[in-house]
Formats: sequence, structure tokens, C-alpha cells
Amino acid sequence: MHIAIINGPNLNLLGSREPEIYGNQSFEDYLDTLATDYPEVEFSYGQSNVEGEIVNLLQLFARECDAILINPAGYSHTSVAIADAIRAIGKPVIEVHISNVHSREPFRHTLLSGGAALGVVSGLGLDGYRLGVEHFLSHPEAQKEA
Amino acid sequence: MHIAIINGPNLNLLGSREPEIYGNQSFEDYLDTLATDYPEVEFSYGQSNVEGEIVNLLQLFARECDAILINPAGYSHTSVAIADAIRAIGKPVIEVHISNVHSREPFRHTLLSGGAALGVVSGLGLDGYRLGVEHFLSHPEAQKEA
Amino acid sequence: MHIAIINGPNLNLLGSREPEIYGNQSFEDYLDTLATDYPEVEFSYGQSNVEGEIVNLLQLFARECDAILINPAGYSHTSVAIADAIRAIGKPVIEVHISNVHSREPFRHTLLSGGAALGVVSGLGLDGYRLGVEHFLSHPEAQKEA
Amino acid sequence: MHIAIINGPNLNLLGSREPEIYGNQSFEDYLDTLATDYPEVEFSYGQSNVEGEIVNLLQLFARECDAILINPAGYSHTSVAIADAIRAIGKPVIEVHISNVHSREPFRHTLLSGGAALGVVSGLGLDGYRLGVEHFLSHPEAQKEA
Amino acid sequence: MHIAIINGPNLNLLGSREPEIYGNQSFEDYLDTLATDYPEVEFSYGQSNVEGEIVNLLQLFARECDAILINPAGYSHTSVAIADAIRAIGKPVIEVHISNVHSREPFRHTLLSGGAALGVVSGLGLDGYRLGVEHFLSHPEAQKEA
Amino acid sequence: MHIAIINGPNLNLLGSREPEIYGNQSFEDYLDTLATDYPEVEFSYGQSNVEGEIVNLLQLFARECDAILINPAGYSHTSVAIADAIRAIGKPVIEVHISNVHSREPFRHTLLSGGAALGVVSGLGLDGYRLGVEHFLSHPEAQKEA
Amino acid sequence: MHIAIINGPNLNLLGSREPEIYGNQSFEDYLDTLATDYPEVEFSYGQSNVEGEIVNLLQLFARECDAILINPAGYSHTSVAIADAIRAIGKPVIEVHISNVHSREPFRHTLLSGGAALGVVSGLGLDGYRLGVEHFLSHPEAQKEA
Amino acid sequence: MHIAIINGPNLNLLGSREPEIYGNQSFEDYLDTLATDYPEVEFSYGQSNVEGEIVNLLQLFARECDAILINPAGYSHTSVAIADAIRAIGKPVIEVHISNVHSREPFRHTLLSGGAALGVVSGLGLDGYRLGVEHFLSHPEAQKEA
Amino acid sequence: MHIAIINGPNLNLLGSREPEIYGNQSFEDYLDTLATDYPEVEFSYGQSNVEGEIVNLLQLFARECDAILINPAGYSHTSVAIADAIRAIGKPVIEVHISNVHSREPFRHTLLSGGAALGVVSGLGLDGYRLGVEHFLSHPEAQKEA
Amino acid sequence: MHIAIINGPNLNLLGSREPEIYGNQSFEDYLDTLATDYPEVEFSYGQSNVEGEIVNLLQLFARECDAILINPAGYSHTSVAIADAIRAIGKPVIEVHISNVHSREPFRHTLLSGGAALGVVSGLGLDGYRLGVEHFLSHPEAQKEA
Amino acid sequence: MHIAIINGPNLNLLGSREPEIYGNQSFEDYLDTLATDYPEVEFSYGQSNVEGEIVNLLQLFARECDAILINPAGYSHTSVAIADAIRAIGKPVIEVHISNVHSREPFRHTLLSGGAALGVVSGLGLDGYRLGVEHFLSHPEAQKEA
Amino acid sequence: MHIAIINGPNLNLLGSREPEIYGNQSFEDYLDTLATDYPEVEFSYGQSNVEGEIVNLLQLFARECDAILINPAGYSHTSVAIADAIRAIGKPVIEVHISNVHSREPFRHTLLSGGAALGVVSGLGLDGYRLGVEHFLSHPEAQKEA
Repeated sequence: MHIAIINGPNLNLLGSREPEIYGNQSFEDYLDTLATDYPEVEFSYGQSNVEGEIVNLLQLFARECDAILINPAGYSHTSVAIADAIRAIGKPVIEVHISNVHSREPFRHTLLSGGAALGVVSGLGLDGYRLGVEHFLSHPEAQKEA
Repeated sequence: MHIAIINGPNLNLLGSREPEIYGNQSFEDYLDTLATDYPEVEFSYGQSNVEGEIVNLLQLFARECDAILINPAGYSHTSVAIADAIRAIGKPVIEVHISNVHSREPFRHTLLSGGAALGVVSGLGLDGYRLGVEHFLSHPEAQKEA
Repeated sequence: MHIAIINGPNLNLLGSREPEIYGNQSFEDYLDTLATDYPEVEFSYGQSNVEGEIVNLLQLFARECDAILINPAGYSHTSVAIADAIRAIGKPVIEVHISNVHSREPFRHTLLSGGAALGVVSGLGLDGYRLGVEHFLSHPEAQKEA
Repeated sequence: MHIAIINGPNLNLLGSREPEIYGNQSFEDYLDTLATDYPEVEFSYGQSNVEGEIVNLLQLFARECDAILINPAGYSHTSVAIADAIRAIGKPVIEVHISNVHSREPFRHTLLSGGAALGVVSGLGLDGYRLGVEHFLSHPEAQKEA
Repeated sequence: MHIAIINGPNLNLLGSREPEIYGNQSFEDYLDTLATDYPEVEFSYGQSNVEGEIVNLLQLFARECDAILINPAGYSHTSVAIADAIRAIGKPVIEVHISNVHSREPFRHTLLSGGAALGVVSGLGLDGYRLGVEHFLSHPEAQKEA
Repeated sequence: MHIAIINGPNLNLLGSREPEIYGNQSFEDYLDTLATDYPEVEFSYGQSNVEGEIVNLLQLFARECDAILINPAGYSHTSVAIADAIRAIGKPVIEVHISNVHSREPFRHTLLSGGAALGVVSGLGLDGYRLGVEHFLSHPEAQKEA
Repeated sequence: MHIAIINGPNLNLLGSREPEIYGNQSFEDYLDTLATDYPEVEFSYGQSNVEGEIVNLLQLFARECDAILINPAGYSHTSVAIADAIRAIGKPVIEVHISNVHSREPFRHTLLSGGAALGVVSGLGLDGYRLGVEHFLSHPEAQKEA
Repeated sequence: MHIAIINGPNLNLLGSREPEIYGNQSFEDYLDTLATDYPEVEFSYGQSNVEGEIVNLLQLFARECDAILINPAGYSHTSVAIADAIRAIGKPVIEVHISNVHSREPFRHTLLSGGAALGVVSGLGLDGYRLGVEHFLSHPEAQKEA
Repeated sequence: MHIAIINGPNLNLLGSREPEIYGNQSFEDYLDTLATDYPEVEFSYGQSNVEGEIVNLLQLFARECDAILINPAGYSHTSVAIADAIRAIGKPVIEVHISNVHSREPFRHTLLSGGAALGVVSGLGLDGYRLGVEHFLSHPEAQKEA
Repeated sequence: MHIAIINGPNLNLLGSREPEIYGNQSFEDYLDTLATDYPEVEFSYGQSNVEGEIVNLLQLFARECDAILINPAGYSHTSVAIADAIRAIGKPVIEVHISNVHSREPFRHTLLSGGAALGVVSGLGLDGYRLGVEHFLSHPEAQKEA
Repeated sequence: MHIAIINGPNLNLLGSREPEIYGNQSFEDYLDTLATDYPEVEFSYGQSNVEGEIVNLLQLFARECDAILINPAGYSHTSVAIADAIRAIGKPVIEVHISNVHSREPFRHTLLSGGAALGVVSGLGLDGYRLGVEHFLSHPEAQKEA
Repeated sequence: MHIAIINGPNLNLLGSREPEIYGNQSFEDYLDTLATDYPEVEFSYGQSNVEGEIVNLLQLFARECDAILINPAGYSHTSVAIADAIRAIGKPVIEVHISNVHSREPFRHTLLSGGAALGVVSGLGLDGYRLGVEHFLSHPEAQKEA
């Protein structure tokens, strides 16, 4: 199984800043651990602070991968473009948020892109990415159960 | 590790009705599978259609268990009482929604109880419960990462 | 034909209080008259002040009855759980309101449960229940006309 | 008893278009059946696509009839003029909607005219008109019970 | 000076109904008195329950008269068409409301047509029409003072 | 008849500033003309930029005068205190606005104090004050017609 | 091809008033030019200031014509009745607005009827009608592309 | 005088959890002290986490007691059922909140049940219950002063 | 203990107007009774119809007194300045409302100043002031319990 | 005449995906046809998924072209930056939407960029681009008619 | 150059209270420093807790000074009267806020008076006043650049 | 001191377009003047029309500079990503707007990024940048005063 991970704005700062909040681990380091723990998965990774680049990454990875994990960070709440891309690409997408967006400012409670995805994992830290991998592995056809 | 699962209104109908949507599996059957797959976990289970009984179950299980998975179903969107209980009991709680609430009616986008929980898993079917168990097992101290 | 009637909070007070508004007739007395007038119908009756008990009654009567009349009273305006139950049980449901909810406070204009039902009769007093019976009798298959 | 029925915009299309939704029966045909079934009632009928003509019909029929059934269709949701006319004419008025307005678009949940009427029957198809007749017959003085 | 008066829906009922609220005087009688008291003014009068007829009357009277008094009644709050007509016709228009719309239901606080007029007189009964006449007489050029 | 006039904030600037908008006439000059034109009326006058002083003036003039004309200017839209005072003093009050508040910014469309008054004259310039005097003279008992 | 054009309130004033805004051309003159330029099209034309008459015209032209161009002017923003008629008649309808409604007052940004039509052309002047004709000619089956 | 006290969801946790916020005293202990301090009052007490049970308790105590103190906790903000019960039972009710709801989250600023009660005491800790008792004792007829 | 009482707009009318609502007692008379009943308390009193004077009184009494009772009347709902003053002065403040603001117009449900105070007593008439005194006496350090 | 066409996010997928919705034609192919049909027009074309790149394209093409057709897709509804660019560049711009945005989700009804453009064509498929070309050709000076 | 500074409610407490937030410096002391640092400027100063007094001060200083710095504190968010005064007086006004109002409660994000001023400096502490002086000095004619 | 300046969309057009509004000076020219006037400051400068590039610039300059001046232009009102970046980078940021956003369209009154910054200068033209430099120089440690 080939899984792509796409991270949005400011997530490139993980590990280098505010370690008391985000820990000392960069996302690249985390990804190494993840790849080690799931050797049966091929991972692709992209990060961008630019909304449209995230659309580009979705289109690109949709051609190469079986499933996508996305954390659009601040764009989750306002981006029609990313939501439209998720709907257009025809591959299963799970949205991950490191913090619990439902307990933060009201403008973070709207998840335009999350509503276009298969599902959302929020508030469980970096472990949310692993849980997304777990789900894709156990549901190889990503069939929706509602 | 002792994990409690609390299900809210109408989830007792799983498996016996609308199988094309919800599958043929009752939650009790699913729970058996889950218990088999995670023998290191002791599970307690409660279901109620009554909002206040869910508050009772939260208070009860908080005294006996290490962590709680809750799917308050329709009460997620309006219940201050359940949210207050989650905040009061001092045990880690993860909220699970079988369908993706973010892609349904707008009144399902507000998660009062979800905002009081550690995190939320939405839209990944019954597998959401398993992912919650996975998280509790890998984070025995349920320390928040934000 | 077997029809269930479910009454919500405070409707147990009918007849014993505020007779200038609600008349001297308890709902039980009214139900006796109704049963006498419609001998071809078997009636079941349940009342509860508890939102979740109304969900329970809906699930219970759905297994036994052909059709259900429900007056969720104050829960009509806020209960996602009752609305979800009406949608889940697969039996025709008509919502009855004794007073005209559309001419009262704005928060009574939203009918979450009424939107899940086949139809709503509002403002025609206790006669609303009889009209629901009339409709079920003349439309034994309760097929929707829109 | 003399009952007037007033239908609003597009209801003149009943029976001639979209029969899979509205059936093959024109309202005139339905009215014939109704008049046959209730020989003790004299019926008057008016239909207009024009909001103000509905106000005219309300004023006209109020002078001639004992009670009025009205289906203002799309004007229910915005017409202060029709609501004011209902309040002004001093005859009992029941509002009928063929489809269940509470399960359609949000702008159909507001019933300005329905709030001025004695009551509302919504979602029970053409049978809603008959139920209104039933109510007027059984409550000759149309006294409000709240 | 030639002044037109246009009355909207239900104002044709003045004097014949609800005399405890609206008095015993029909608008026609009131207009006779007004014409007697202001012999230097030629009056034209039109009433309609139909929104678009009020647009017609505005266009018609704008060609014949120097100024217009309008009471659009229930259409004041929602009619873009009447507001657009007032803006288009190039004659001074004063809007009159018999009751004080600002102390009634919130939907009566919006005055779409009143915002297109020169000014509004509200709550001073039928005398509001006379005050409009007074203003036109004392300001023959209806020049706005703001 | 003794009529008080109360002007609110910035109306003391009339005549001395922005004459192209407000004319060259101070309110004091206008009041002189008004008093000359209506010799049968005794006028009292007060102006204040202070919301609470306007409450004071309402209480003071209510003890001395038969009727009150008030232009609360910017306080009309937000002052619960002035509205409560108008309701409390038991004398007829007409609110005057020189410009047409309904055609200005949305926050000027709410008239808290105007809703507590007998009626409102808006947009007819300084002539609005004279029209208020006219109304009080012709309706010595200020009986509401609605 | 037989195309009907329906114009709403105040559009009968085109050419005779405010020529600096609307030009010197009446709609009838424009229609002559259009008919000359498109000899292969038979045109029908109706204008009314009355909302319900526009519903009537839609129903009438739907029986005679292949396609309809409609400019409901001020009714676009509030008319459920016109929107319902467009949905009911089963012929392709394009809504035209002479000015760009999206750059005017916020209440003009809602297009109830436009949302029921095939599409909307806004802000391109009278040329919007010609573009509608162009589209119908090049898409004789008016098949939606989305 | 016989006074009932009804406590809502999570108030059964007082004293056993989060003592730095809620103190070490359970409500039962507090009630003992209160009963000792007011020997002339007979107290009844009920607590439930279930909204409808609180309706039940209101109906029950209304038959036995002279006055009721209620703290509906999280249900205050959303419960039409409890508000309707307070209006229906015909006994004076004072709502108590331990914390100051007006300084907490916006959804706690709406007090549906509080608006149905005689009055509300908020933010004065457990002493709010005593103040309610004080008020009932000094106003044995609980006559409203507004 | 030295307690200051500050009353806002129109409360100086207590006793002299609308006695059927407010009783025959002026606040000064009530204060005499209160002072007699609580000889151990020194009272200071100020009333103003001016929002900013209430800010002045808060600052003044904060220097002299141990605790403050305030009834800002109509300013409670809109005054950021009074709320800021309560937060700034560092003395315990209880807000009192004679009528139950939660059962009146919606704009009275917002309590900006009440949210800055220690707590609020609403709807218990003049007795609300006494209850505030009771609370200060029994909680000399006015420590918050939440 | 030199016309630029700018397409926004996901429009690069036209023709290669979801052909049942968007057809088999890529935009490049469509553009070839368009260029063939309008040999008198020189076309420039740019597409980007990046909001700011669309601003760049607007600034770039404004220097080279006579007029611009833009389809900002998902950015239409939220982009102040694109709207500001349209206002700043001083060239006529027409906004095109392939689907009818007025019949889709409410967040697609707001057209920030469309309100800054000369006009909008929505819902007429790829033909909307041709209609924009038609308009520019027949109105070489792009003078606004309102 | 003669510059007036007007401070609103509670700013008279600067330096004497909450020094950890506001520092130890009273505004008078700060003004001395400012006057020393800018000897070429004549300063006038006024402070009031009364909204209308701030209107008075604006009118007064507008006659004497070249420019005005104003910090209306809590009145910024609700005062139409102060905003109208700023627009009326014809002198350049800069609004200063010591704290960053955009990062505080939502009701502090609206700046009615700030929208009437030339510009706003927010969040830069007392230095905001100096920056206003700097701007006036470097732009003696206070010509707007937008 | 090393200060970075970041400009958002369309600000690259300063000086070359609409000189009657924006003047003849490009930002580069202005920056030259600024650098000449403040030789003790080292300036870095970046401009982008792309939201995410502004996030990149913030992250980049945060590593090199002591303080940042940012004018996100149209992104100020909607960009969660830029606001999150300002909060994340740990360097003092002042937001500058050339025009007074508070006197423009309502959607420009929300300043998401401004609320994350130390403070905001709005409406003072290009001088706003200089005032930001002034503040950084006089407050080398950028300590917040609130």
C-alpha cells in the first residue's frame, strides 16, 4: 500500500520551535519512525505553506498513491479549493489535526476540507497519522461505513 | 488497561436495521471481535438512549476504568451536561462518530461534547472505536499533544 | 390497524392543571373516547418526560405497531436523538402539537423531529391526534405524497 | 357549513405535470371527490399565483364562508400581507401543505401565514385538506385549544 | 399641488372591521375629510392588495402627480420591487404607517421601501397621511434636508 | 398646550457646521420660528450630548409638559435607558429624525427608543418637529390609533 | 427555436427614464433588434410588475416555447413562488440581470429564482439577453454541463 | 414552610471531585447545615442527571411543597421541557447557579429555564441556595415584584 | 462592613410612578428599612441616569467601601465601560435586577456588567439588594466559589 | 482584440477526470476550438491552483490584454485578494462559473471576486467562456450598462 | 501645532491600579514626558468616564486644536454618538488603544468610532499616543493616503 | 536593529497604478527613504501575492530579524495560516494597513492576523510603516503594555 501524507502551513516548524507544546520531534523524524513501524507501507510526503500547492500535492499524489492523509492546518477552515480537490481526485483521504480543533476558537470548528474527506481524526497528537495508516491498512478498499 | 465504551441513542439498533448502511453486525458482535483482537484490554460497555444516563455512565466508568470511548450520537451536538461530565471526571475520553459528521447537516458540525474530550474520530465507521483503543494503548498516560 | 401514541414532557398534566387552557380532560380520558370512536384501531400509549425514554418508546412501538403518533412537546425543537430515531425505525410517524407552535416563541418554530416525520399537525388541539388516526386509516400504506 | 379553499402559486399544475410526484389528480378532481364525500359541506374554491389575489380571496371568502382552508405554497414563508389578512378577517383558517415543509430547505421552515392561522397540517398530501374539513366539522365553533 | 395616496394590502378593510382598533372610519371617508381640509390639493387615490399593482400605481401616479404618500403595509418589509419603483420614478414619496412598526414584531422593523422614500411617518394613526400632506405643502420642492 | 423638545448628541452643532448638509439655521433659530408659528403652544427645550442627561430631561419635562418631541440622534439605536424612560414617564412622546435613518447604515435601522415612543417621523428634515407639534395639537389626548 | 422573454418589475421603464443609466432604448426596441439579428428564433415577450403574473407567464410560455429567458428583477431575491415555477415547468430557463447584482446591496446577492434556473448572466447589460439566446441556439437540448 | 431543592447533572459530584474548585463539602453535607440553620423549613431534595427526571421532580415536589429551588446546571441553557414544567406547576421557583454563568462561555448566557422562574441567583456559590430560602421566607406568598 | 449601593437609570422613579408595578416605596425608603435591619452595615448610596457617572461612582465607592451592590438597569446590556470598571476596581460587586431579565426582551438577556461581577440576583424584587447584603455578610472575604 | 483566460483551482482536471460530469474535453482542447471559432481574437491562457498566482496572472495579463475572463473556482467565495486585484488592474473582467453556483451549497452563493468584476456568467457550462468572448467583441469598450 | 488628547472611561485609573498590567505611570505623568519630548507641540488634555462628555470634549477641542488623539476605551465599540461627533467636527482624529483590541473579546473587534477616525493605533501601549503625535507632525495637513 | 517588512497581495502595484489614490511612490522608493531616515536600522523586504509565501517569509525573517512589520492586505481578514505563523515565530510583529480598514466594507473589520500581532496601525498611509519602526526602536524588547 502506498500512502501519501500532506501537511499544511506551519507544520514544517514541528520540533524546532515551541518544544513544550509540539515536542522535540520534527515531522520528518516522526515519519521515519512511522515508516519503520509500518514496513509494508510506502510513504510519500509533502509539506507546503501555500494553499494551492496543497491542491497540487493532492492532484499529484492521487495519481501515485492508494490513500492520502492530510493535515491542512489553518486552511481546513476556509479552503473551498482543497475541499473541491479532495472531492475531485477519487482517492480516500483522511484529515488529521494534531490538536482538538473542537476545543479551540469557534472559527476552527468548521472543517470545509474535513467534510469532503472520508473521516477526521482530531486531538490525538501525531498519533492521529498512525491511526489513519491503521485504518487504511485494515480497510484496503476504504469503503465508507456510515 | 480497562477501557469503557459508552454508546448513545439509537446505536442499539446497529445490525438489526438498515444493514445496507450500518452492516449486519450488532455492536455487541463488534465488541466481541474487538475484545478478541485486544486481549490485553478489559472492556466495559454501556448504551443508553437517555442523555442523563450517559452522564451516569461517564461518572460510573470513570471510577472503574482507565479511559473511555464515547459515541454520544445525537447528543453530541447539544448536550452541555455530557460535556460538563467529560470535563469533570478526570479520565481521558475520546469521542467516536461512525459517520463523518462534518459532511452531514450543519447542526451536526457542532460537537459540544467532542470539544470537552481529548480528541475525536469521525467518519471511519466502527473502526473508529478500534483506533481509540489503539491510541489509549500507545499513550498509556493519555498525555495531550497539541 | 395498530397505532401507538407517544406523548412527551408535561403532557401527563393535561386535565389536572390549568383547565382554562387545556380543558378538564386528561389524555387518558381523551384516549378512551378515541378508542371508542375508532374500534377498528388498536391503540398503544406511552408518555414520558424523559427524552431518551421517548426514543425507547419509538423503538419499542416500531416493532409492534403499524403507525405512530408522537407529540414530543418541548423536545421537538432540540432533539436530534428523537429525529434520528424517527428516521431509523421505518414506520410512518405523524407529529402532533396541541397548540400552534408557529404562533409562539421563535425557538418553537424549529421542528427537528417534525422534519423527520411524515407530517405535522399543529394548533388543532387534541383533535390533532384524531386527524392523525384518520390519515393512517385512509392511507394504510402511508405512502408519501409531496 | 360553508368552507372555502384557497390555493396559492403553482398548485394549478397539480395533476398535469410531474405525476410521479404529485399524482394524476388535478385539484379540481380532488375537490369533486371531497365534495362527494362531505355532502353536508358547501365548498368554494379559488386559486391564484398572485400573492395579493390570495389576500383578495381571503377577504372575499371571509364574508361568505364559515371557515377557510389555505395553502399559500411559496408565499407561506415570506408573506406578511397574507398573514395580516388571516389575522384581520375574523374567520377560522387552517393552513395546509401537501409536502412536509419541515423536511425541506430551511427557508421553508418559517411559516409567517401559518403562525397567523388556527393551525397547520403539513406533509400528509392532499389528505391534509380533508383533515381540515374534518376538524371544522367536529369543531363548529373552531374554538382554540392550546 | 396634486398628491397621490397609495394604500397596500388589507387597508381596504379600514372602518368595516375591528373598529376598536382601527376606528369606524373607512379610508375613503378619511380621504373626504382630508380633501375638504386641504382644498388647495388635488388628491388621487389607489389601493391594492397586490404588490405589483402598487408598483403599477407608483409608475402611473408618478406621471400625473407632484408627490406621493404610500402605505405599503405588509410589503414594506420585504418588497425590493416597490423600493426599486420609488427610486426609479423621480417624484418625492413619503411612507406612512398607521401603527408604530418599531414597537411590533422584529420583521416589521425593516423598511425596504421606507429606506427608498424621502421619509417615514410611523405610529401617528391616519394623521400620518395629513402630516405628509403638510410636509409637501410646506416644502413644494421636496428638497431633502438631512 | 406645553410641548418639550429634547435633542441628543451633536444636534447643538446645527447651523454652525456643514451648512451644505444641515443648513444655516441653528436649532435655536428654528425653535424661534416654530414658537412664532404656533403661539398657542408653550415650548421647553433641552439639548445634551449625554445619554443619561436625556433620561433626566425626559423625567423633568414629563412633570411639566403635556407632550414631548425627542431626537435622541445616535442614542436611538442603542439606548435601553432612554427607551425605558419613555415607557416610564407616562406622557406621549414622538421621536424625530432629521435624516431618513432607514436609508443609512444598518445600525441606524434599529430604533430602540422609537419603539417605545408613540410614533416616529424620519427623513423630513427640521419639519419633522413641526409635524410632531401638528399631531399633538390635533390629537390633544394623544390617543393611539393603531 | 421559440424563445420566451419574461421581464419583471420596473423593467417597463427602460428607455423612458434615467437614460444616463439605462440608455435610450426601450426593451421593445431592443427586442426588435434582437429579432432582426436572430431571424431563426421566434420570440414571445411578457412583462409584469406582479410576482404572480410572472408565475403565470412562466406556466404559459412553458407550454408554447422551447426555452425561456427571465429577468425577475427585484423578485429574484425573495420569490419562492417564481423559483418553484421554474422548477415545475420543465423547460430550460436562464436568468438575466442587467446590472451586476453581486456588486450591489447584500440583499441582492441571494438569487432564489436564479438557483432554480439553468444558469445566470449578470452585469452585462441588455447584452445578457442576447448571450442567453446564443446559449440556447448552440445548446439546442439545453443539457446541463456542471 | 416546605421547600424542595432540585439539582441537575453532575452536581452529585460536589465535594468528591475537584475540591479546589468546588470545595470539600458534598451537597448533602451542605443541605444538613442549611436544615440546621433554618429549622422552621422542611426540606425535600432530589438530584438527577436526567433532564426528564428533573421534570418529574418538579411535578412531584409541586404537589408537596410551597416553593422550589432548582439548579438545572447544563440543562438551563437548552431545556424547553424544564422551562415548560416550571411554567405549568404553579409554584414559585428560583433558579440557582453556583458559578456566574454570565462570565462563562456564551452558550451559558441563555437561561431558558431561568426565564420561566421567578428569579435567578448566579455566581454566589452554595450560598445561592440559602439566599433563595431567605427570599421564600421573607416573601411567603412569593408575589412577584417587577 | 461598609457596603455601597449604586442604582442606574430610571430607578430614581421607584415609588413615585407606576406603583402597581414598582410599589409605593421609594428606594430611599427601602434603604432606610435595610439600614435598620442591618445595623452592623454602613451603607453608601448613589444613583445616576448617566452611564459614566456610574463608572465614577464605582471608582469612588471602591476606595471607601468593602463591597458594592449595583443595579445598572438598562446599561447592563450594553455598557463595556461599566463592565471594565467592575473588573478594574478590585472590590467584590454583586449585580441586582428587580425584575427577571431572563423573561423579558432578548436584548435584556445579555449582561455585560453582570459577567464582570461576582454574581447576579435577578427577579426577586427589592429583596435582591437584601440578599446581596446577606451574601457579603456571610462571606466577608467574598471568595468566589464556582 | 487580445483576451486572457485565467482558470483557478482544480480546473486543470477538466477532461481527465469525472467525464460524466465535466465531459471528455480538457480546457486546452476547448480553448483550441474557441480560438478556431474566433480567429479575430488573440487568446492568452493561464491556470493555477494557487490563489496568489491568480493575482499574479491578473496583474500580468492586465498589462498585455484588452479584457480578461476569469474562473476563480473555489477562490471566488473567499478571496479578498483576487477581488482587490480585479478592482486594481483597470481592465474589464468577466467571471465565469461552469456550474450554477446559486443552486449549490450556500457558501458558493457569495461571489467576492464576481462582485468586483464587470459581470458574471454562471451555470452555462464551458459555453460561459464563449459568451464572455461574445460580449467583449460586441462591446469593444466594455462600457458598463447597469 | 496644538494637539488635544481625550481619554475615555477608566483611563483615569492608569498608574494607580493594576500596575503589573498598566505600569506605574499615570497618564498625567506620561503626558508630561510627552510634552517634554515634543516641545514644538501644545497639548490639551481631557478625560471623562461619560460618553456624552467625550462628545463635548471633541466639540470643544475641535474649535481650539489642530488635531485630536482619542482613546474612547469601552465606548469605541458601541458609541454612535462619538463616531458622529468625529465625523462632524472637521478636524483629523486618530484613535488609540493601549491594548490590542483585535486579540480580546469579540465585542471589542468592532470600532464604531475608529471607523469614523483618520486611523487607529492599537496594541502598542502608551507609545500609541506618541505615534499619533509623530504622524500629525509629519503630516501637518493630515491628508489621507489610502 | 534588523527589521523585516512583508507586504501582501497587490501592494506591488503601489506607485505604478491609480496614483490619485496611492501616490506616485512605489514601495521600493518609500523603503529607500525609510532606510535613509533610519540608518541605525537594517531592513529586509519581501512581497508576495501568495498567502503561503507570506507564511514562508514570516518563518524566514523570524530567523534573521529582530522584529517584523507586516501588511497582509486582503489576507488579513481570512488567513488563519498567517495568524498561526505570527503566533508561532516568537518575534514581535506589527500589522500595518495603509487605509483605515474600520471605515471600509464589513469583511475588512475582522483582522485575524492583526489579532495575533503585537498591535495594528491602520489608516495612516505609508507613514504606518515608519510608526512601526519608531515603536520597535523605542521599545527594543517589544514588551507588551496592555
